[in-house]
Amino acid sequence: MTDAIRTLPLSAVDIRDDFWTPRLETNRLVTLEHQYDHIKANGCLDNFRRVLGEAGGEFEGPMFVDANAYKWLEAASYVLATEEMPSLRRKVDEVVSLIERTQAEDGYLCTFFMLADQEDRWTNFSRMHELYCAGHLIEAGIAHHRSTGETTLLDVARQFADHIDERFGPGQREIIPGHEEIELALVELFRATGERRYLDLSTCFIDRRGRDPSPLATEFSREWELGSTEDYDEVLQSIEANRDVFLDESGTYDGRFAQDHAPVREQESVEGHAVRATYLYTAVAALLREIADPELFDAVERLWESMVRKRMYVTGGIGSTSEGEALTTDYDLPNETAYAETCAAIGSVRWSQKMFELTGEAKYIDVLERALYNGSLVGVSLDGTRFSYSNPLETQGTYERKEWLYVACCPPNLARTLASLGQHVYAQDADSIYVNLYVGSDIETTVSDHPVRLSQRTEYPWQGDVDVEVSLQAPTEFEVKFRIPDWADGYEMTVNGRSIAADAVDGYAAVRRTFEDGDEISLTFPMTIDVLAAHPDVRADEGHVALQRGPLVYCVESVDNAVPVHHLILGDPESLTASHDESLLEGVTVIEGTATVQRLDEWDDALYRPIDAVGTDQTTVTAIPYYAWNNREQGAMRVWLRLA
Amino acid sequence: MTDAIRTLPLSAVDIRDDFWTPRLETNRLVTLEHQYDHIKANGCLDNFRRVLGEAGGEFEGPMFVDANAYKWLEAASYVLATEEMPSLRRKVDEVVSLIERTQAEDGYLCTFFMLADQEDRWTNFSRMHELYCAGHLIEAGIAHHRSTGETTLLDVARQFADHIDERFGPGQREIIPGHEEIELALVELFRATGERRYLDLSTCFIDRRGRDPSPLATEFSREWELGSTEDYDEVLQSIEANRDVFLDESGTYDGRFAQDHAPVREQESVEGHAVRATYLYTAVAALLREIADPELFDAVERLWESMVRKRMYVTGGIGSTSEGEALTTDYDLPNETAYAETCAAIGSVRWSQKMFELTGEAKYIDVLERALYNGSLVGVSLDGTRFSYSNPLETQGTYERKEWLYVACCPPNLARTLASLGQHVYAQDADSIYVNLYVGSDIETTVSDHPVRLSQRTEYPWQGDVDVEVSLQAPTEFEVKFRIPDWADGYEMTVNGRSIAADAVDGYAAVRRTFEDGDEISLTFPMTIDVLAAHPDVRADEGHVALQRGPLVYCVESVDNAVPVHHLILGDPESLTASHDESLLEGVTVIEGTATVQRLDEWDDALYRPIDAVGTDQTTVTAIPYYAWNNREQGAMRVWLRLA
Repeated sequence: MTDAIRTLPLSAVDIRDDFWTPRLETNRLVTLEHQYDHIKANGCLDNFRRVLGEAGGEFEGPMFVDANAYKWLEAASYVLATEEMPSLRRKVDEVVSLIERTQAEDGYLCTFFMLADQEDRWTNFSRMHELYCAGHLIEAGIAHHRSTGETTLLDVARQFADHIDERFGPGQREIIPGHEEIELALVELFRATGERRYLDLSTCFIDRRGRDPSPLATEFSREWELGSTEDYDEVLQSIEANRDVFLDESGTYDGRFAQDHAPVREQESVEGHAVRATYLYTAVAALLREIADPELFDAVERLWESMVRKRMYVTGGIGSTSEGEALTTDYDLPNETAYAETCAAIGSVRWSQKMFELTGEAKYIDVLERALYNGSLVGVSLDGTRFSYSNPLETQGTYERKEWLYVACCPPNLARTLASLGQHVYAQDADSIYVNLYVGSDIETTVSDHPVRLSQRTEYPWQGDVDVEVSLQAPTEFEVKFRIPDWADGYEMTVNGRSIAADAVDGYAAVRRTFEDGDEISLTFPMTIDVLAAHPDVRADEGHVALQRGPLVYCVESVDNAVPVHHLILGDPESLTASHDESLLEGVTVIEGTATVQRLDEWDDALYRPIDAVGTDQTTVTAIPYYAWNNREQGAMRVWLRLA
Repeated sequence: MTDAIRTLPLSAVDIRDDFWTPRLETNRLVTLEHQYDHIKANGCLDNFRRVLGEAGGEFEGPMFVDANAYKWLEAASYVLATEEMPSLRRKVDEVVSLIERTQAEDGYLCTFFMLADQEDRWTNFSRMHELYCAGHLIEAGIAHHRSTGETTLLDVARQFADHIDERFGPGQREIIPGHEEIELALVELFRATGERRYLDLSTCFIDRRGRDPSPLATEFSREWELGSTEDYDEVLQSIEANRDVFLDESGTYDGRFAQDHAPVREQESVEGHAVRATYLYTAVAALLREIADPELFDAVERLWESMVRKRMYVTGGIGSTSEGEALTTDYDLPNETAYAETCAAIGSVRWSQKMFELTGEAKYIDVLERALYNGSLVGVSLDGTRFSYSNPLETQGTYERKEWLYVACCPPNLARTLASLGQHVYAQDADSIYVNLYVGSDIETTVSDHPVRLSQRTEYPWQGDVDVEVSLQAPTEFEVKFRIPDWADGYEMTVNGRSIAADAVDGYAAVRRTFEDGDEISLTFPMTIDVLAAHPDVRADEGHVALQRGPLVYCVESVDNAVPVHHLILGDPESLTASHDESLLEGVTVIEGTATVQRLDEWDDALYRPIDAVGTDQTTVTAIPYYAWNNREQGAMRVWLRLA
């Protein structure tokens, strides 16, 4: 496409933001070190050494543990794109070298199978994750190349991609990746290398889904007969508990878990394992930038709408059940048992980003913003050392983030998301610059070959004022498009202090003019407290409301409230006030309001009583941003509050 | 005890009631025939014939299927106590004879093990239900004896009880019944025979629970090594799925499932499998009529309060989860996933009856009434041919009663409960007659050796007027105690038309006088529609209300309402009206009122919106008694309604 929207390279986006910079610094200085220590201590790196004969002992971790090293490398590479960090660079070099040396002559690379019998390789696509690991290797290789200029890891990735293409590409054995990931990585590999066959391989993987009979179903029924090594048997046994996620109620293969129930272009709703689903549709959206396929576009847009309008938590989290870590049915969004895996929110961020790049529509960034500031960011503690996998919207106090996880997909996934935040803030097409997220930052780019610098200053998400200063070497005509968030009830815009009346189009308020050096554009959104209801078909939220201010969804945590949080009945929404507390949770805006609470003594230990039999007392309710909860003492929390 | 409360024999209670008589006629004429056909067709009777070599094929049904025949016999016997039914009598004789002939020389009787190897008998008490079946045999034997005067089945039961007593009684091998039932049956067997050792055996089974180490835990860990026949292996395998109900989170034996976590007298809350729990505590309450044990009484009262105040649905159902068919934690009462097994409600009815017999307190009958009219009666369709096992308080339309069940404990349990309804209506102590339930009926009894007849006429539960006429041969002094239901907001009483001011004591309004033939006592309860809230800790019912009128809990069913029932937001409770519709559901009082419903078109397919963004329309809500739902087309239903 000629007018295609493109993002800016990370090196062109210098984030200087009161909200995000502390998060990114913690990610860079604490989280990446912490995660390196864990992939080292938990045997992930040793597995490579075991293949090389440089370490003893047996394979450690789940079969897809290699992906942790790859995602960590990807995150570290993004950091190195903008920061000089010699000690991090040394660790990256060490891990890259280890991976490079481990790769087999024929390009194969998956330590679990390299430590098992050779004939077990490529026998089980439904659940053995070899291609999933390959996808993360490719993403890491590209990130490493882009930030360091080196080709070592990219070459490893290409050799493995070639190995896969030779065996399973067009005209070869028709397998399907059981856990999508490689599809999106192959599109990026095409972009990074220009090699068309990577695009074709991705297309072929996407197109093979949902056929009848499904190659995945054949794999699935065959897998139990395979496995010649003890290791392999053990792994099959360990995942047997998950066997029925592939089965429908009658016990026959059900493709939904792996989005294999219908060809993608015929799928009507997001189904199955939430991470798998978002990774697949991210790949489809990425692919559609390279090929014209209106039918496939209609499908992926329909599927995105299915997620956003029927199956997404108010936090942007998706996946309503831990059984199969899966999406369930329309409007089925229980709060306490919400799975809402951190990786799935991240997958949704990636999918929405690609949908925006296809269409230039702000609605995709609205959802990206919701999933980023809430459902993703909640995945890591403020100190950067504890991580969540599932993210309930209510708990009685049993939940807490963990230092590490046996299945540790989420921690490095979040690390790479934070380290690459810059990619989501701006975008460009022929002569427009999109300001998608309000994040204090300076960018350098060119518009029609003219150098352009923009400097964004904002106290977002706490305040709704955004100032952008334009720096130019010469007057230049172009357009700046500001996303008007879906939660914003109007906005005001000035250029050099003079009001501009601009109706938002596709969610953007645009200023097109011949800019001069030093021009200033200011944008103001009123920062109101929104009291949200869920659609009447969301039975879990009946009679309850969620508080949102700006892009942030709020929750009540027991530590801030005098009564059990489920006793709080929110009073008049007009009573709600917001105030910033710099000393709380590294600085958050707190929402407070009046609430009532039933007099427990008047219940006299009865279980049921006429509604008018019990009086109420006045109290107050204090809410904090959802992303910031579970950073003090362990306790109860809920997003959805009873409304009087 | 000298002043002990006693119930009247079924033959002394002639029920003639607009509400109950049609239910009992259906039970007698349709349900008993239907159930006989099923126990015949499904191999339950053939299993006995197989032991005798009179039928071929393999054992059919779950290992405890004999109990179905016993419960059916018990139900049929109750019917024969008041009705001449030659064809039913012939079937009873046939089944009794079959059972009698099947019993082993040594008294043993359990077809599953009689068809397996002899050494498998009495090897697995934790889950193999031999003693559970024995308990139901004993109950059937007593019922059969009382109604027919014959001793055939009672003798079979006694021989089996003796067999058990010799092996597992005081001083013998210290086993514990894995599924309680025999404990309560043995107390009744003591009452029926005067044989003290049956009481001692029951006491011994009750006292052995909750010891450390538990004999049941030892059985449990041993059972997997046992089993010499293929049949047995197969059964163990089939119940392996339920193995973890006996395990805590760390995988070690957890006595709670079978009320084996602490000695009964030390137990603080009702735990574990709901039917097991109610059967155990029914036995304890029955035992306490025979022995003085204040500590044990405190325990069983405490446990009953635990059930009623913390763990009981508004329908009287108990058991919040299908996992282990179990009680869970205080206030955990989810509606859609409510298990609330019919057998557990029946068990609660029996337990409350025994608690009343111990104490003379009406609160026990209040709960009995709730569990009988709602949680139990819902277990059978109006036509008497379809049965429920679990009883959710909300469904989206996937629920329906079944003609029969593989595990068919509930259908004959309900049949015997209906057939013996008369035992719950009245009771007597030295010179008082308790009118516990308001059911049109005539009774004949004696008070201080004087013949007394009472004739009760009422339109309960639809209307709150009760008239009792006293028939005497000579003026007699005694007391009539009318239960004032917990839901009644006051009452008025007259004797021969003159008002009597009587404060209720222990839940009873009493009239003590020298009655003369023809005296009439009239009682009136105002029949209001109660709008109930649940305790603030019942998170599943937050912001919702249940409607109750008299003893009946109501629900909304999709067939009666123009909008999806979960969209209904109840309006002003004052708008609710009740009207009787003789043509609906064999005659029910319907509750109607105003409701609002959000304008779906204004939602415009959004998932979240500010609360004030969507308008509402007025509509009406129609509610029917919970027991009567699912008798028309399949659809959605809920008990707890949103309140504006």
